[in-house]
Amino acid sequence: MMSSQISQSTEHQFTDSQFTNSSFLRACQRLPTDVTPVWFMRQAGRYMAEYRAIRKKYSLIEICHHPELAAEVTLQPVRVLSVDAAILFADILLPAIPLGVGLEFAKGEGPILHNPVRTIDDVIRLRPVNAETDLGYVMDAIRILRESLAGIPLIGFCGAPFTVASYLIEGGSSREFLKTKTMMYSDPRTWHALMSKLSQVLADYLVAQIHAGAQAVQVFDSWVGTLSPQDYEEFILPYSQFVLQTAKNENVPVIHFGTNTTTLLPLMKQAGGDVIGLDWRIPLDDGWARLGQDVAVQGNLDPALLFAPLSELKKRVQDILQRAGGRPGHIFNLGHGILQNTPVDTVKAVVDMVHEYSVLRERV
Amino acid sequence: MMSSQISQSTEHQFTDSQFTNSSFLRACQRLPTDVTPVWFMRQAGRYMAEYRAIRKKYSLIEICHHPELAAEVTLQPVRVLSVDAAILFADILLPAIPLGVGLEFAKGEGPILHNPVRTIDDVIRLRPVNAETDLGYVMDAIRILRESLAGIPLIGFCGAPFTVASYLIEGGSSREFLKTKTMMYSDPRTWHALMSKLSQVLADYLVAQIHAGAQAVQVFDSWVGTLSPQDYEEFILPYSQFVLQTAKNENVPVIHFGTNTTTLLPLMKQAGGDVIGLDWRIPLDDGWARLGQDVAVQGNLDPALLFAPLSELKKRVQDILQRAGGRPGHIFNLGHGILQNTPVDTVKAVVDMVHEYSVLRERV
Repeated sequence: MMSSQISQSTEHQFTDSQFTNSSFLRACQRLPTDVTPVWFMRQAGRYMAEYRAIRKKYSLIEICHHPELAAEVTLQPVRVLSVDAAILFADILLPAIPLGVGLEFAKGEGPILHNPVRTIDDVIRLRPVNAETDLGYVMDAIRILRESLAGIPLIGFCGAPFTVASYLIEGGSSREFLKTKTMMYSDPRTWHALMSKLSQVLADYLVAQIHAGAQAVQVFDSWVGTLSPQDYEEFILPYSQFVLQTAKNENVPVIHFGTNTTTLLPLMKQAGGDVIGLDWRIPLDDGWARLGQDVAVQGNLDPALLFAPLSELKKRVQDILQRAGGRPGHIFNLGHGILQNTPVDTVKAVVDMVHEYSVLRERV
Repeated sequence: MMSSQISQSTEHQFTDSQFTNSSFLRACQRLPTDVTPVWFMRQAGRYMAEYRAIRKKYSLIEICHHPELAAEVTLQPVRVLSVDAAILFADILLPAIPLGVGLEFAKGEGPILHNPVRTIDDVIRLRPVNAETDLGYVMDAIRILRESLAGIPLIGFCGAPFTVASYLIEGGSSREFLKTKTMMYSDPRTWHALMSKLSQVLADYLVAQIHAGAQAVQVFDSWVGTLSPQDYEEFILPYSQFVLQTAKNENVPVIHFGTNTTTLLPLMKQAGGDVIGLDWRIPLDDGWARLGQDVAVQGNLDPALLFAPLSELKKRVQDILQRAGGRPGHIFNLGHGILQNTPVDTVKAVVDMVHEYSVLRERV
């Protein structure tokens, strides 16, 4: 049953002949590719002059709210870098706006949520979200992008329930996630109510993105590495699984990403994803071995290496490609998003290195 | 040769009959104990009313600079909690003061270093440090404590070269460690010069603490988990090894601590330490298996669990003790320091739980 679904999915995937040869979409399904595909988390953003020019006139939220601006910003790195996939420009906290938690992006401080979620009443008060209408501007951006992106697949995304919940509970960014963990340990009823509500909202949001035209999706569980495997299994896994499986049922490749996840990898695989993200803390071959060969992997250059001299960077890119061993199912990426002030030329150089060295590897 | 050194060390350790039965010192050497020893990183600090009373009159640095105050603050948790070891109250950045980097503890902001180290000239300009004189107040506190601590062993400590270097280079706390990594990758000459200088200063500082009376030492590499194993091996290992080995040569147990270190554990063991710290991200039995049985382990309760109800906490403490399996060489601790606002009664309850359940375990 499951395997027939998967083969249906593959057929469905390639009905659009324009994308039959997409190295990114093929690698997601562990099909052989001519070169290793490469894209970067946060490939659109402040390190690009084109983006900064737009940010002079519009705030982050304004860009997200204007589909033509979001589409333009999404396209900037595609034009400049020759990456193999585009990722929609958006923020994982956009679904928090219709939930009614009072989201604000304060200058230089990151997100602030003026009405954080701390009690069962706070969970009950969260407003219902209709992704198609409340977040329609995201779907509009996707539709514009599918018109503009000739042959480059578009990745949609959302935050994973844990990572979104952590912002809702903490009221912003956090280092220790103490309020989040305290709710898990001390008030599990509220925790499970919140996670259940969030996973429904996030799953709907992903499905809407796929229906609008996203050809793959990534679920960002960026901060889940603060948890023990025990806590992941009890408090996170069923909710991530629901979101990942719901997206999977739409027949697009699903990428499951986190950082600091070495001990969580088998459970993350169990939760789902055709592709699992690895960060630089685990050598790519060790991570892939830990996960098993029946899943693709994405990663895993340290974003700080984009500040290194090209000679050093070249060694690191080659090392990652060697560890991947030319096996189908590796998507080159960073272990986390591109940092501010990253030199654009270096990012571009990495794209070229990945393409060049993976071709050489095939020939050897 | 090595094994005869170790047995000499053991003999030396127990010349002081008052400490023959210290469960902490015995566990460090993987000798059987009646109960599992327990202490907590940052067991002296703001979560204690007695500490806050002193902080009303004195700053953090003032407490460190006045040996009788530092000793008093060190003793507070020993009196209240019945822990099996005292750890000197100090800050890992104290050696930065005589180095001349302009250390300031700004209110609510953590440490700020007004003259960060960014170039080879900055490294050359670092002032020579004589631990006995420049940091004599630390040794004075240790001497006072050895008079006051009846039968409870005293742990001295320092930051590991990487963690201290990260503050010196970043100019304070950091999340991405971008300046630190950039120096490693782009200016390895400066990096190695800095690490070489720091490891000498830190090793001398530890030796001075041991000569003053510290009966064990812990080397805190709190932030090293931001690195890949590859980087650890090339840029960190030889320096940590020098510090750990220098302390080891003084015939006291040495604890090697870090967080987020799952993939670094074998290299940390190679660098040295009789005891390796584990955080909650790795189940204690998995971590110990990864390290091998020829080393003791310390950990690994998530500090956030000290905010959980006692019923939940009890399960977690029991789980850790079960994973340790009653094998000699487990010291119970948190996976990182006690957080601000932690309820003191809960910390005390954990000490009692560890002692009670480890006794029951022995009887079963």
